[in-house]
Amino acid sequence: MANKLTSRSTDYSKWYNELVVQADLAENSAVRGCMVIKPYGYAIWEKMQAQLDKRFKETGHQNAYFPLFVPKSLFEAEEKNAEGFAKECAVVTHYRLKTDPNDASKLIVDPEAKLEEELVVRPTSEAIIWNTYKGWIQSYRDLPIKINQWANVVRWEMRTRLFLRTAEFLWQEGHTAHETREEALFETKQMNDVYADFVENFMAIPVIQGKKTESERFAGAEETYCIEALMQDGKALQAGTSHFLGQNFAKAFDVKYASKEGKLEHVWATSWGVSTRLMGALIMTHSDDKGLVLPPKLAPNQVVIVPIYKGEEQLKQIAEKAHIIAQNLREAGISVKFDDRDTHKPGWKFAQYELQGVPVRLAIGPKDLEKGTVELARRDTLTKEFIKQDELVEKVKDLMVEIQDNLFNKALNYRNEHISKVEDFETFKKVLKEKGGFISAHWDGTAETEERIKELTKATIRCIPFDTENESGNCVLTGKPSNQRVLFAKAY
Amino acid sequence: MANKLTSRSTDYSKWYNELVVQADLAENSAVRGCMVIKPYGYAIWEKMQAQLDKRFKETGHQNAYFPLFVPKSLFEAEEKNAEGFAKECAVVTHYRLKTDPNDASKLIVDPEAKLEEELVVRPTSEAIIWNTYKGWIQSYRDLPIKINQWANVVRWEMRTRLFLRTAEFLWQEGHTAHETREEALFETKQMNDVYADFVENFMAIPVIQGKKTESERFAGAEETYCIEALMQDGKALQAGTSHFLGQNFAKAFDVKYASKEGKLEHVWATSWGVSTRLMGALIMTHSDDKGLVLPPKLAPNQVVIVPIYKGEEQLKQIAEKAHIIAQNLREAGISVKFDDRDTHKPGWKFAQYELQGVPVRLAIGPKDLEKGTVELARRDTLTKEFIKQDELVEKVKDLMVEIQDNLFNKALNYRNEHISKVEDFETFKKVLKEKGGFISAHWDGTAETEERIKELTKATIRCIPFDTENESGNCVLTGKPSNQRVLFAKAY
Repeated sequence: MANKLTSRSTDYSKWYNELVVQADLAENSAVRGCMVIKPYGYAIWEKMQAQLDKRFKETGHQNAYFPLFVPKSLFEAEEKNAEGFAKECAVVTHYRLKTDPNDASKLIVDPEAKLEEELVVRPTSEAIIWNTYKGWIQSYRDLPIKINQWANVVRWEMRTRLFLRTAEFLWQEGHTAHETREEALFETKQMNDVYADFVENFMAIPVIQGKKTESERFAGAEETYCIEALMQDGKALQAGTSHFLGQNFAKAFDVKYASKEGKLEHVWATSWGVSTRLMGALIMTHSDDKGLVLPPKLAPNQVVIVPIYKGEEQLKQIAEKAHIIAQNLREAGISVKFDDRDTHKPGWKFAQYELQGVPVRLAIGPKDLEKGTVELARRDTLTKEFIKQDELVEKVKDLMVEIQDNLFNKALNYRNEHISKVEDFETFKKVLKEKGGFISAHWDGTAETEERIKELTKATIRCIPFDTENESGNCVLTGKPSNQRVLFAKAY
Repeated sequence: MANKLTSRSTDYSKWYNELVVQADLAENSAVRGCMVIKPYGYAIWEKMQAQLDKRFKETGHQNAYFPLFVPKSLFEAEEKNAEGFAKECAVVTHYRLKTDPNDASKLIVDPEAKLEEELVVRPTSEAIIWNTYKGWIQSYRDLPIKINQWANVVRWEMRTRLFLRTAEFLWQEGHTAHETREEALFETKQMNDVYADFVENFMAIPVIQGKKTESERFAGAEETYCIEALMQDGKALQAGTSHFLGQNFAKAFDVKYASKEGKLEHVWATSWGVSTRLMGALIMTHSDDKGLVLPPKLAPNQVVIVPIYKGEEQLKQIAEKAHIIAQNLREAGISVKFDDRDTHKPGWKFAQYELQGVPVRLAIGPKDLEKGTVELARRDTLTKEFIKQDELVEKVKDLMVEIQDNLFNKALNYRNEHISKVEDFETFKKVLKEKGGFISAHWDGTAETEERIKELTKATIRCIPFDTENESGNCVLTGKPSNQRVLFAKAY
C-alpha cells in the first residue's frame, strides 16, 4: 500500500480505481463484476446504514426480510418491470451439483436436479414483495404498510466498476402500500427528502432534487424522483431514487383493499432505494490526489494519533500522554485510534491515514511532551499547526463541525459553478466538452429529442428539478417551445 | 390473527407453526422453502444482531462483505467442504431472460446467455473468502485477520420449517486467519464462549458447550465446537457452532505466510456462525399455549399500555396519564408502546400482546385514574396485580431483571431435569421415548456405533461436553470400554 496514486488530472478514472483499492475500501473478486467490500469500506457503509435506518424508523418504517429468489412467473407479472430487468438477471436453474463422472475431483450440475420453475436472483424486490402484500392487505385497516429491507441484489451489468456499478450490490429498498394516490405521492417525496437530507448533512454532498423523464424512470414506475450529485470530473451521479408506482404492482398482483366505504380498490405503491453506490459518490466528491477525504460524520476514525519516538522509553512516555488525550477526546464523543505499531514508521503512517481520509491526525514527539503541545494536521486542507494539549479537545470538537461544513461548501461551490445555462446546441456541446457539469437548458419534452441529444453528446437528462420556475424558451436542439429548463449531464 | 393456538400437548409441531405465523414473526413465501421475516420477527432479529455485533467488535473483529456467488471451481477446491454442500446448493447457470417467442407475456431463460462457469449461491463462504485471503496474506504482519460477515446463505433443504430449516436464511459467519494452531484454537473456543454468553444472558436459553463427533462436524473442519439447547418438547437444538478448520482451507487455496523466522507456512483458520435459527430456539424455549414469551432483553416492546375506556372524553383523560407513564418508563430505558387504536377492543389487544410475548402489559381504566393505580400483567407468569402509579417505574425496572432471570431459570430447571444418566440400551430407548431430553451415556467412540444408535432411535450425539470429567464405563450399545460420557438426543 501507500503507492502514489495517479493524479486526478492525469486520469480520473484510474485515480478512482487505485484509490478504492489502496485505501482498503473494496476490491474485485473472483466472481465477474462482484466486489469484496473490505473492513474499512464496510465500516463507512455501516455508518451510512445506521444513519439511514434511524431516519427510516423516525418516518414510521419497519424493517423486514423477503426472499432472495423470485420465481419466474412472479418476476414476469408486472410487464414493464420484467422487461426492464430481464436483460440482466442471474437465473438459478438447478439445486444440486454432483461429482463429475469423468473426474472425481470436479463437480458438475446435476441434470436430475433441474428446478420446475427457474428462480431469478432479485434485481429489485417489487414482485416478491407485492405478491406477499396480497396476503397482508384486506381492508383500509391494514394500510399503510411501510417496510424497508436491507439486502443484496444482483444485476448482471456488463461493464462494472467498484461501488459504482457492480453485478451484486448492497442496498436498502423501501416498499410501501397506501390507500390513496396522494398518500403514496407524499411518501415518494418524503423519502426523496430523507435521502437529500442524509446525503447533504451527513455525507456533505450537495444534491439537486427532481423527477426523471419518462425514459429514465424506474421500470414499472409512474414517476421517479431522484437526487443528483456532481462529481469532481464534471459528471453527474444519481445518488438515490424514490418511485411512485401508482397501482401498477397492485394490478399485476391483484392487491385490493376494502375502503371505509366498503368499495374494493387497488392499492397505491412506492419504492425507494440507495445503495453502496453512495460510496462511489462519497469518494468522487471529496477526495484528492493524496487519497480519500472523509467527512467527520462518516469517518470510522475521526482522529488518529501517531507517536514520533526513538526507542521504547520514549514511546512509553508518549503513549502515556496519548492515552490521556485519546480518552479525553472519546469522552467528547470523538472516535480515536492510537497507532503505536512498531512495524511502520511515522511517515508511512502519515501517508496511510491521508490515503484513508482520517479527518484529523495528531502527532506527538518528545518536543511536544516538553512543550505541552500536539501537532495537528487537517486532512481536508492539508494544513498543520501546533495546539496546546489542554486546548485540544475543544479544538477538535470545533474542527469536526468545521471540516464537515468545509467539505459541503467546497462541493457546493464546485457544483454551483458547474451549472451552466445554455440556449443553443453549439454552446451545449462546447460547455459539455470543455467544462462539464450540469447544463440547464430548454427541452421540447419528447423522448426523441432526449435520445438524439444523448446520441450526439452522451449527455442525458438527469432530472427536471423541483425548484425550477416555469420559464418560456426554446428547445436547445429542436427550437420547439418549452416552458421549463431541465438538467443535462454526462453521468455515472 | 388472535385465533386460538393448538396446544403444545396436542401437537407441538403444529403449535410452533401456528405461533410463528400468528405472532407475526414469519411466513412461508412463494419460493419453496424460503421465508418472509415479518417486521415483528425482524425487530427481534435486529436486537440479536446488535448485541452479537457488539460482542464481535469487542473481541477484535471487523465486518466486511464478500460475494453471494462462488464460482464452481472455487467451490470444489476444498474437497470435504464441497462434498458436504454440493448436494444442496442453488446454481446460477444463466444471466439473462428473454421473451418467450411462443408467448410474448412470458419470459424464458436465454440459451445464449449461459455462463462459462456456473456460480453456486453461497451455502457458506469459506471458499470465496479464503480465495480472497490469499491476496491479503503475505507475512505474519498481515495476521491475524478477524472478519465477520452478516449475510444471507442458501442451502436447498428438502424439508423446511420456518426459522429452523429454510432454503435461504440470514446469519453471520466469522472467518479468521492465524499464525498458529494454538491461536486458531483459542479463537474457536473464544467465539463459542461468546455465543454461549449471548444465548444464556440475552436470550435466557441455557446451553451446553462441547465438541461434535467426527460425523457431526462441519464439512471441512478439524473440530466443531457447539452450543446445544433443549426445547420444551425434549428435543435438542444446535444454537451455534465454531469451527477449527486447521490448515484445510489454506492448503486448498494455497494461503501461506512468511513467519518471523522467514519460513513459509500455511495459515490456520476458524469459522463460526449463528443464524435466524436462533429465532426458533427462542420460541421453543420460552413460549406457551397463549403464544410467544419474550425475555425483556429481546422484546421490541418491553411494555405495552392498553387504555380501557368508554367514549372519547375518557380516552383523552387516560391517554394523558398513559403518556406520562410511558415517558417516565422511557426515561428509565424501557421501551413502551401505547396502543390507543380505536379499531380494536381491549380484550383483543390483551390476546394480541400475549400472543406476541410482550413482557409487561399495563391497563389503565377510569377507576385507575381515580385510585392512582395501574393494572400490571406479567407475560411469563400470567399473573396480574394493581400497582400505584408512583411506584410503577421501579416496579417495571425490577421486573425486567426478574422476568429475564425467571425465564432463564425455568429453562435451566427444565433442561437439568432432562439430562438422564443412562447405562444400558433398553433404558436409553425408554428414556428417549418417555421423557426425551439429553441422555448422558458412554459411547465406544466409533462412527459405526453412533450411526447404529441413530438408526435405532433417531438420537444423535449432540456433543462431547467440555465440562465432563473422565469416567470409565461401557458403551451403552456395544458394551465396549469408554472413558467419557457424551450427550445423545433427538434434535431439530
